[in-house]
Amino acid sequence: MLTMTSIRRLGGEFALINAIAKVTGKPKNKRVVVGIGDDAAVLAYDKKHYMLLTVDMLVEGDHFSQKWSTPEQIGMKAMEVNVSDIAAMGGLPEYALISISLPEDVPVESVIRVYKGMNTVARKYNFDIIGGNTTHGKNLIIDIIIAGFVEKDRLCLRSGAKIGDLVCVTGDLGKSAAGLETLKAGFKGNVKPHLEPKCRLKEARMISLHANAMIDVSDGLASEVGHICERSNVGAEVFKEKIPISKNTLSLAKKVGKDPYDLALHGGEDFELVFTIPEEKLENIKIACPITIVGRIVDKKRGIYLVDKGRRMPPGSGYDHFKQE
Amino acid sequence: MLTMTSIRRLGGEFALINAIAKVTGKPKNKRVVVGIGDDAAVLAYDKKHYMLLTVDMLVEGDHFSQKWSTPEQIGMKAMEVNVSDIAAMGGLPEYALISISLPEDVPVESVIRVYKGMNTVARKYNFDIIGGNTTHGKNLIIDIIIAGFVEKDRLCLRSGAKIGDLVCVTGDLGKSAAGLETLKAGFKGNVKPHLEPKCRLKEARMISLHANAMIDVSDGLASEVGHICERSNVGAEVFKEKIPISKNTLSLAKKVGKDPYDLALHGGEDFELVFTIPEEKLENIKIACPITIVGRIVDKKRGIYLVDKGRRMPPGSGYDHFKQE
Repeated sequence: MLTMTSIRRLGGEFALINAIAKVTGKPKNKRVVVGIGDDAAVLAYDKKHYMLLTVDMLVEGDHFSQKWSTPEQIGMKAMEVNVSDIAAMGGLPEYALISISLPEDVPVESVIRVYKGMNTVARKYNFDIIGGNTTHGKNLIIDIIIAGFVEKDRLCLRSGAKIGDLVCVTGDLGKSAAGLETLKAGFKGNVKPHLEPKCRLKEARMISLHANAMIDVSDGLASEVGHICERSNVGAEVFKEKIPISKNTLSLAKKVGKDPYDLALHGGEDFELVFTIPEEKLENIKIACPITIVGRIVDKKRGIYLVDKGRRMPPGSGYDHFKQE
Repeated sequence: MLTMTSIRRLGGEFALINAIAKVTGKPKNKRVVVGIGDDAAVLAYDKKHYMLLTVDMLVEGDHFSQKWSTPEQIGMKAMEVNVSDIAAMGGLPEYALISISLPEDVPVESVIRVYKGMNTVARKYNFDIIGGNTTHGKNLIIDIIIAGFVEKDRLCLRSGAKIGDLVCVTGDLGKSAAGLETLKAGFKGNVKPHLEPKCRLKEARMISLHANAMIDVSDGLASEVGHICERSNVGAEVFKEKIPISKNTLSLAKKVGKDPYDLALHGGEDFELVFTIPEEKLENIKIACPITIVGRIVDKKRGIYLVDKGRRMPPGSGYDHFKQE
């Protein structure tokens, strides 16, 4: 190898993605509406719809552990994570392909149970697993591809945020990371949000009719707001005390000695939605889960910052597989 | 885990795929023309076209080695392998997504070179890399998704073989396995067919206009003929001495002490095409590479067999990641 510049030194996963996008260049095909850089690729389809294509890889040890998840839970999580990317675009999933790498002598019973978990989620959201690939590798890896569709007027990109928009989140944050920390510490508690995360497909369909920008929370609120700002060429202020955190998350965080706001900002895997919307449109959104206004989109010059008891702080970045030690 | 039945004991990769297909069930969506069980999934698209979706995972150590491949060669091979699946359906690739798992401290320079290799192949076949996913894992894994299209009258499935069809192959076989064995043994020789395999996209487009069934050679001739027979509900006879093997493959096989026919039948990764065609239609196919008639489709009752110097033999099966020790 010619150079030993590590990905970490390059600046982590998102710097790597930018470097990759430079290699591939802009798509030559005019039917590519959005390429690298959003939750899913967006392709011309018919007069009323775009097609969405997304892929997300889950690696044992990094994204799940057979120590505390059943095979069904692993399958369900893998599928919810991927549906969440389609949800974040405002769309509906239609087809899934599963690419799986299985370690030596994995019990076939547990492989089948992983597929049962994935199929349960596919059935819940009314789509089919239509193909894939099985191979052998050092650890269990599940890579799911989802093709979906979105009505043109419902497409919700990371790049649509406007100055003055409210920054809102669905449900509550930090719950998955709090569960993971609890499991790692060997404590008891309600860790279901970590083991069985649910995406917000139904809510996203309603939000996408009114929001200017949307993303799902896979790497933590700080990272997701950062992505929206980068792609929309804007800044944002987020009020720390507004971030919705459940009683269960607060209690688990206390038990494991972690700052719950840190878990919400940098933990990830909550699969809630972060969206930006003009203030007057917020009342149009009627969904079953709570929506919390956590901040506002501001001019790019003002940057991205967290307001904590009236003091401005840098938000930090989200979970990055290449930055963790 | 409830049972310890290993995949090996279940009967290898294809038995596993059948077990998975039982879990997922038949697609509910009427727009799924072909689901699990061919080189790509086939979906309704417009009046004239089907959409094709395929995914193939390459694992370091199993499918490539950084010991003897440059990063560019790894990227090129990964992409050719996937285009080959679209070719085998008679279609053309249009979009690719790349999902990659990178081991700790991989030099960013080599990751970028892998993407350059993939992009070179995408440009050669005139399609775009439009998205994907990067994550961290124990070994280098490249999972490529290709979406393509095929004219309805050009769709060529594994399931279309008819009794009496000739069984034909493009180019020559065993070359990739011969190269791999040479590299493993540390001998010198022309191992380019292993390091830089090329798929037969252009040839497949012509063949698909006339053939009844088609598949690409990823696991060896024996396995591919077996897939066609299983899906078409027919048998086949293959004449061993007809199998096309190049002088280079013969010479490498001799050097490493392997039977070249064994490499052709069970080695895989040649990415040539196997197709079945009525005898009278064969003359319609005008392509630049040689076509060899290696056998004939027969009644299912007669089974699948190899004819070696007038004697019938079982063909054996192809390369299977779960059956190798």
